[in-house]
Amino acid sequence: MGTRADGGPPPEWRRLEPLELTPILDAALDAFYDKGFHGSSVRDIARRVGVTVPALYYHYENKEGLLVALIELGTGDVLARARSANEAGGDDPAVRLTNVVSAIVLRMTDRARLAAIEGEARYLTSDNFERYRAVRKDIETIVLDIVRDGVDAGTFDIEDPAETTRAILGMCQAIPRWYHAEGELGPEAVAAKYAAIAAKMVAPAG
Amino acid sequence: MGTRADGGPPPEWRRLEPLELTPILDAALDAFYDKGFHGSSVRDIARRVGVTVPALYYHYENKEGLLVALIELGTGDVLARARSANEAGGDDPAVRLTNVVSAIVLRMTDRARLAAIEGEARYLTSDNFERYRAVRKDIETIVLDIVRDGVDAGTFDIEDPAETTRAILGMCQAIPRWYHAEGELGPEAVAAKYAAIAAKMVAPAG
Repeated sequence: MGTRADGGPPPEWRRLEPLELTPILDAALDAFYDKGFHGSSVRDIARRVGVTVPALYYHYENKEGLLVALIELGTGDVLARARSANEAGGDDPAVRLTNVVSAIVLRMTDRARLAAIEGEARYLTSDNFERYRAVRKDIETIVLDIVRDGVDAGTFDIEDPAETTRAILGMCQAIPRWYHAEGELGPEAVAAKYAAIAAKMVAPAG
Repeated sequence: MGTRADGGPPPEWRRLEPLELTPILDAALDAFYDKGFHGSSVRDIARRVGVTVPALYYHYENKEGLLVALIELGTGDVLARARSANEAGGDDPAVRLTNVVSAIVLRMTDRARLAAIEGEARYLTSDNFERYRAVRKDIETIVLDIVRDGVDAGTFDIEDPAETTRAILGMCQAIPRWYHAEGELGPEAVAAKYAAIAAKMVAPAG
């Protein structure tokens, strides 16, 4: 199941790694987190990182470019890990669901600040928003396929696979609202709890 | 179960009513929704509603006062309806859970814009944030009590009542991110689906 039960290193999608951001993106993340996208200025971000405004524009076209870079980094990473987690589950829908929910929740907790600013995506202009939506859709499709495969195999029992998929992803997306790194539970513990809750959401009735 | 099965009018907590906001709060909601709290200015809000800035300050101390008013209106209403919905379920935890989840989801859909700006609550200063947190906590306590009562009665089977409560509320809170009034499903249909999903989350294993 991709755990460390065998004593070996955890698979890549389970690994908690420090978030490596360039100084400019790090400052942009702080600014967007503290004040929101519209409340932050390029001048403010440049000041936080200690570069001039023209130097910042050399790297990013505008403030939206910074938000796009951060959101793509966050959602792209979640998508890549969700894919690996899914593949690691072989053809067992229950294991695949546990893996994918764990992979997503590990990111929602371990990188809660980056995950939190995904809410700012609604301010993206149309092309950028559509690209963001496409990545979200890919993540949704992974979960939906698992759920449908489980229903086909007779191991899951769900009235509405699309809505259950949305509910599973919704409860994960809400995590950055209440999760704080200094809280009682570490990322692994939260991931295990959410994987168990997701398993119940698809389980046959008692 | 508080539905219209008896042909009578729905109970108050189920009723969908147009959102009655004063012109100033209506303009503030539009501004915060479009640009976020930090991206909106009092001047901008005054312009949207067609009053002078001093006139606006006559009613609200500052921009945060507007956000507080909107959030209190939204969460206070959800809390009041969750309480009524809970009481309407008598002493049956399953009915109480269905009622409360329905009451919350009806608000997340029917008043999706007001629900969406609840995300801006993280920008509130400490006293205001604590008051907001207290209301959220009251809503959480209603659900947690239901969940625990169901476990005590032996009709629910849950590993971790507190985490399941958070997951149920989390999936509801995520609704405004994807729900659009012009979507396929109306508030009643989404509420019914989420009530069914919540019921599965607490059901005994098959």
